[in-house]
Amino acid sequence: MKKACLAGMIMAAISGQAAAQSWVLTDAERSTELGNWQVSSQQLKLSGEHFSLQQKVLHGGKQEGSKVLTITSENGLTIALSPTRGMDLLHVNGHGVRLGWDSPVDEVVNPAYINLESRNGLGWLEGFNEMMVRCGFEWTGHPVTKDGVIYTLHGKAGNTPASKVEVIVDDQAPHEIRIRGLLKETTFKKAKLETWTELRYVPGADSFTIHDVLTNKADYPHDYQIIYHSNFGMPILEKDARFLAPLKSVSPFNDYAKKGLADWNVYGAPTKNFDEMVFNLVPKADSSGKTVAAVVNSKGDKGAAIEFDTHQLPLLTMWKNTDTQKQGYVTGIEPGTNYAYPVTIEKEQGRVKQLQPGQSTDFVLTYSLLKDADAVKQVEQRITQIQGEEKTTVDEKPIAVE
Amino acid sequence: MKKACLAGMIMAAISGQAAAQSWVLTDAERSTELGNWQVSSQQLKLSGEHFSLQQKVLHGGKQEGSKVLTITSENGLTIALSPTRGMDLLHVNGHGVRLGWDSPVDEVVNPAYINLESRNGLGWLEGFNEMMVRCGFEWTGHPVTKDGVIYTLHGKAGNTPASKVEVIVDDQAPHEIRIRGLLKETTFKKAKLETWTELRYVPGADSFTIHDVLTNKADYPHDYQIIYHSNFGMPILEKDARFLAPLKSVSPFNDYAKKGLADWNVYGAPTKNFDEMVFNLVPKADSSGKTVAAVVNSKGDKGAAIEFDTHQLPLLTMWKNTDTQKQGYVTGIEPGTNYAYPVTIEKEQGRVKQLQPGQSTDFVLTYSLLKDADAVKQVEQRITQIQGEEKTTVDEKPIAVE
Amino acid sequence: MKKACLAGMIMAAISGQAAAQSWVLTDAERSTELGNWQVSSQQLKLSGEHFSLQQKVLHGGKQEGSKVLTITSENGLTIALSPTRGMDLLHVNGHGVRLGWDSPVDEVVNPAYINLESRNGLGWLEGFNEMMVRCGFEWTGHPVTKDGVIYTLHGKAGNTPASKVEVIVDDQAPHEIRIRGLLKETTFKKAKLETWTELRYVPGADSFTIHDVLTNKADYPHDYQIIYHSNFGMPILEKDARFLAPLKSVSPFNDYAKKGLADWNVYGAPTKNFDEMVFNLVPKADSSGKTVAAVVNSKGDKGAAIEFDTHQLPLLTMWKNTDTQKQGYVTGIEPGTNYAYPVTIEKEQGRVKQLQPGQSTDFVLTYSLLKDADAVKQVEQRITQIQGEEKTTVDEKPIAVE
Repeated sequence: MKKACLAGMIMAAISGQAAAQSWVLTDAERSTELGNWQVSSQQLKLSGEHFSLQQKVLHGGKQEGSKVLTITSENGLTIALSPTRGMDLLHVNGHGVRLGWDSPVDEVVNPAYINLESRNGLGWLEGFNEMMVRCGFEWTGHPVTKDGVIYTLHGKAGNTPASKVEVIVDDQAPHEIRIRGLLKETTFKKAKLETWTELRYVPGADSFTIHDVLTNKADYPHDYQIIYHSNFGMPILEKDARFLAPLKSVSPFNDYAKKGLADWNVYGAPTKNFDEMVFNLVPKADSSGKTVAAVVNSKGDKGAAIEFDTHQLPLLTMWKNTDTQKQGYVTGIEPGTNYAYPVTIEKEQGRVKQLQPGQSTDFVLTYSLLKDADAVKQVEQRITQIQGEEKTTVDEKPIAVE
Repeated sequence: MKKACLAGMIMAAISGQAAAQSWVLTDAERSTELGNWQVSSQQLKLSGEHFSLQQKVLHGGKQEGSKVLTITSENGLTIALSPTRGMDLLHVNGHGVRLGWDSPVDEVVNPAYINLESRNGLGWLEGFNEMMVRCGFEWTGHPVTKDGVIYTLHGKAGNTPASKVEVIVDDQAPHEIRIRGLLKETTFKKAKLETWTELRYVPGADSFTIHDVLTNKADYPHDYQIIYHSNFGMPILEKDARFLAPLKSVSPFNDYAKKGLADWNVYGAPTKNFDEMVFNLVPKADSSGKTVAAVVNSKGDKGAAIEFDTHQLPLLTMWKNTDTQKQGYVTGIEPGTNYAYPVTIEKEQGRVKQLQPGQSTDFVLTYSLLKDADAVKQVEQRITQIQGEEKTTVDEKPIAVE
Repeated sequence: MKKACLAGMIMAAISGQAAAQSWVLTDAERSTELGNWQVSSQQLKLSGEHFSLQQKVLHGGKQEGSKVLTITSENGLTIALSPTRGMDLLHVNGHGVRLGWDSPVDEVVNPAYINLESRNGLGWLEGFNEMMVRCGFEWTGHPVTKDGVIYTLHGKAGNTPASKVEVIVDDQAPHEIRIRGLLKETTFKKAKLETWTELRYVPGADSFTIHDVLTNKADYPHDYQIIYHSNFGMPILEKDARFLAPLKSVSPFNDYAKKGLADWNVYGAPTKNFDEMVFNLVPKADSSGKTVAAVVNSKGDKGAAIEFDTHQLPLLTMWKNTDTQKQGYVTGIEPGTNYAYPVTIEKEQGRVKQLQPGQSTDFVLTYSLLKDADAVKQVEQRITQIQGEEKTTVDEKPIAVE
């Protein structure tokens, strides 16, 4: 094996898999930070699909010091994530399709410039523009104040700079790339939740996998919640775009969503004053617990699909925010342990899970960019198959009132 | 034209004016940040008044990472502003006169170290030391909590790092300098207000102009407020210094200011326990809507004047903070769309303005350093002329109670 | 005298003492920041005990940009403090003994990433892991909201980046090292408290001295509070470790601590669900006002002692947090002007002190690492001597209810 001679490069035999090259981009323990960094398959003298990996430190405005780490695959996807913002996925592009959306927030905001408690717990909205943001893990959902404590919108993980960031490239073709980041939610006496996030991507592919492992490192049980808030706008989202998933049931999040229940899974064009409708879904899964949800354009030749495991993420939220383009024309497909109600309601209704001391739990999601009618059709068939004969129950009444 | 060879220098023909040289010091979109930077008229081989432009990245304490951009004109003014703090003006010096004041806060505090919500919405006071700070644009005024949201003192613009900073030097004598900075107040679903701030200065002159353009980039109408909080201490402010402006009316901000109404426009020496008196003024303008307000020293040979347009900024606040030197001996001349009451009161009383989707509005203010008796006399004459025969109405009753 | 040629090195004759070499590592006034820096006794060609001084800028997670300054003495102590976190002491090591503890918070958190107001005023807990953190000076104690203002847990000093950091090495043997840092707690109209912190260490010694000078730089009197929150875990803290101090009285902080009053000064092994017990102590002093408190291990051959002056710090808090290792098995020995009740209670009960305009006050504490049975015995003898015949009063009733 040939090796490029780069700072920070380490040869490592990763346990349980073939030999690989790896780089530690960030490590709080050893106080490592590579900053601007890049490597390419050419430099690594790897055959097959050309790819490059690049970390860039951003400047200007409220993104001063934020980092973006990008995988660029010549014939596959370009995937950008931010280690400074909880390893969240910023956007994914390939084959003329974009997974992501245009938020009015157009900077990768450094959490140092965000006060999550501002706007009565809605400070999160000052940084929200990701294709996928982890909403958790200490809590998630709409903000609520209890005993003087503001449980801010969607928790802190998405605004937590990663304590460790590693990039691993498999020596063996097809040279799978893994980007791993460690998020710590630690507060003396309150929490010690650690999440190893991982993104796996095979150069040239149209899919990638998120595999997160959340561990309660404390000596006491700790509640946790997670919603994988995955957001798609143009060009997938458009008039008559459709949401697809095998479902046991659907119900409106609140009275406003009730008004849109009749055609809840079909999208309208950008519509002034639409604001947002949210639907609570119970996904149906195959015999192993796996399911898939997707959004596809009107023609059915572009889309995004998310496969997930209902043992890990039993619930699904569909966020229909088909307001104007500038307001943020976007839909969220949000597999989670929870719905988006405040943690107090989620707790009351028994949906909040708990980890015992030392216990870990896994979340695996595979995101696919559906580049053509064939790709869309395959997902549709899978969904039809999982749905089977069972009809989706439509419950008109919201299960909770905020 | 000769050009210096400097990183970041771009030749640009700025639309609507003669050819010019320009530098992009900061650009969030392209992730540019020049950091420490400087250029001089000598380097640019420009004839006439010598000047230099310098950006410096500060260190230490809570100013770690803050930037200061300074224009130094050999026979004119030295003007320092901070891109990190909303392009606010820190201080201006020339001819032995200083525009600015001595705040107990003596660092250029990086907003990353400020929590605007602290002290029940008074966190802004932990960074306040500018000669001119933009109080706006989403809201301004004293803090108030409504529906759980703290509308913090004087809004967020002054603690917003500029997303773009450009310096432009006109090729033609007298080589006007323009410093432009873009401030974004963006929150998903809440606001997308963008302000292009601009400072124009002709080397050698005793005046400079602020020209801000505020745009509502959202698809919905948005309220806005702005107060140009312009602050002057020694050597202009002293016992028997005077405030001058053509006025329709004056009224005390509150009951405490009522006690000082008799000689509201004459300043006392630094006075323990004076704290602050605030007066609400309605300026009188010339036929084109222009007016001027000034503070001059007791002898009338030093001063500061601000010309502004009452169509843009119809109201004027006079802040008399003649407490002790260490407490901050300072007066504010504050042209604005609003008075300093909480936004709830301003809204109730109909003073809050609104921008339609895509609409912009301009604010143009010319600041002059009055270096001698002649300069003071000219401003006084202009004020007398605008005031004409009309007497200033004195209203004893505050228009609102906080 | 021989001098090393190093950036930032200055020759200075420090007033009131022999000639010395000094370095300004940080200076907000001159915008100096040396960043990564080091010097050693060898480089300085100093004879005697070898030592080195090193500043390191940390990276990764929430410690991005935090600085750690470390004294390493070959046969004495290694002392690490953080200029970014109020010159707080992180940990001290020597002779196989560690002063400090294992907090679940394992990064040196940059205050830019901490919101002290979060968790209803408990945000401080997201950064707490120091061996000694200054709790003050504007206020200290448990959080309380009064008139809408949250007085956050233990004040702001510990999360204030130092505005000036100097290192001074005495030319004369034994080459005493002084590390000085300036903390500013400044808010327009609210406070201008400045603290020059100083750590003095003679290379090779087992003790070091903290000498802080707090000055009220305002023109108005200002309340102040300070607790030197000094924290010790393994290997000193263990089952049957003992707390020692000459005392006039002891009382439980609250009803829960009352249950542990019988053996309040003996520690248990790590105990699940123990949480914390706090005891309010009135120290007894020698005729000059000096006293000493210590924690020693069960065998009595390891310990930590703190000498302080009861004229400066009349009160002592003992914090018994013998919960599990991962939860933070730690005890606090906390000399202070105050107990840990909210500032409202401390004020009501007359314990809050005040500084007049321009007035300064000193706090001198000597920390000793007790490396063996002899060292422990000496401290025990001193304590016995100061205690004399007088018995410690045990008051069963907490003096206040939160």
